[in-house]
Amino acid sequence: MNNAILEFSDAEREAVYRAIRTRRDVRRGFLARPVPDALLQKLLAAAHSAPSVGLMQPSRFIIVRDPSIRREVYDIFEGANAQAAASYNGEQRDQYAALKLEGILEAPVNLCIVCDPNSARGHKLGRHTMPETALYSTICAIQNLWLAARAEGIGVGWVSILDPDRLRATLNIPSHILPVAYLCVGYVDQFASEPDLERYGWEKRVPLGTLISYDHYSEEGER
Amino acid sequence: MNNAILEFSDAEREAVYRAIRTRRDVRRGFLARPVPDALLQKLLAAAHSAPSVGLMQPSRFIIVRDPSIRREVYDIFEGANAQAAASYNGEQRDQYAALKLEGILEAPVNLCIVCDPNSARGHKLGRHTMPETALYSTICAIQNLWLAARAEGIGVGWVSILDPDRLRATLNIPSHILPVAYLCVGYVDQFASEPDLERYGWEKRVPLGTLISYDHYSEEGER
Repeated sequence: MNNAILEFSDAEREAVYRAIRTRRDVRRGFLARPVPDALLQKLLAAAHSAPSVGLMQPSRFIIVRDPSIRREVYDIFEGANAQAAASYNGEQRDQYAALKLEGILEAPVNLCIVCDPNSARGHKLGRHTMPETALYSTICAIQNLWLAARAEGIGVGWVSILDPDRLRATLNIPSHILPVAYLCVGYVDQFASEPDLERYGWEKRVPLGTLISYDHYSEEGER
Repeated sequence: MNNAILEFSDAEREAVYRAIRTRRDVRRGFLARPVPDALLQKLLAAAHSAPSVGLMQPSRFIIVRDPSIRREVYDIFEGANAQAAASYNGEQRDQYAALKLEGILEAPVNLCIVCDPNSARGHKLGRHTMPETALYSTICAIQNLWLAARAEGIGVGWVSILDPDRLRATLNIPSHILPVAYLCVGYVDQFASEPDLERYGWEKRVPLGTLISYDHYSEEGER
């Protein structure tokens, strides 16, 4: 056993948990301070280190800095958000309208992360029975980037309130490529201690214990 | 700005990158040393800290220790793996057959992570235009667990060569719940310096630079 290669010190281990625990979905408070390209490349390298089924590495990264493109994406968000807002009633509609759900224009850089789910790379290993694992690989990459960003003091916010077809058109994403995540990325001066949606009363976190079962699946409270 | 809350020291930041860089998909070398339940709970708490769309927290965790159930899952793997092997020809078939792709029986504990994609929790926020983000939340949880495990010296291997319907039947997973990942989990005495599939010649990692484009999507080599 090579302990130097294997083992994390207590402090190193705690740093990993700290990144996991204090990562937030950031929608406000982005600073104007630019994110240097070298740092962005470091975050993308973290994403690129993620596991991928068959080592197919299906993720592709579009760095969006152009303000006119970001304005178009913001318009797409506004359309989708108005539609979503209209699906709620009464107090919940007001509550929804008061939430800030994106930082497309405030964040100094946006990232669109896409997946090539049918790439020949990896020779289909692991994708015969569960082809969706190609897409899963891309999400693992996104979570790596999110945690690396937290350690760098950089906030990341994932915007899913977007019409995927309009996003494709704006970013020239061809039909065989799947848009997975649109991220707002930038330095922030703080990370909130709780998730925004909890702070603003939309939803509460559920206790972990109710989500665990042993040897077989069972529903909450039945284990 | 509260630097104590915001900032990672250089050493802390490097620890996060170290976990990301040295995490491996582990299929061999699991030690018999048991994984204490308290540690498993710590890993699951890391998973549970992951972002989730609308704060819906759709992930559910099945801890599988029962050897007879793991034997059933291993049988499911064998069936799916034989079918997968038959899809390759010649040298590639031999190469596939020589790969070790799971550690279901050797790892002291297995984890099946599932998703309740239509849960009312989160009140559908963020899921009107991209309902698949519920599932994405579960993958983020898995990647958190994978990195926390690396920091603890625990290897994790994701087995996707399984028939999802047979897995459902074995673990009593109802039809509205999606089996996402089946993980083999246990202490290891080393983490390989390269991915197994690269070491054994199945696939090579692609340079990051070929996967990045600016402002619009473009294919490799065209940017």
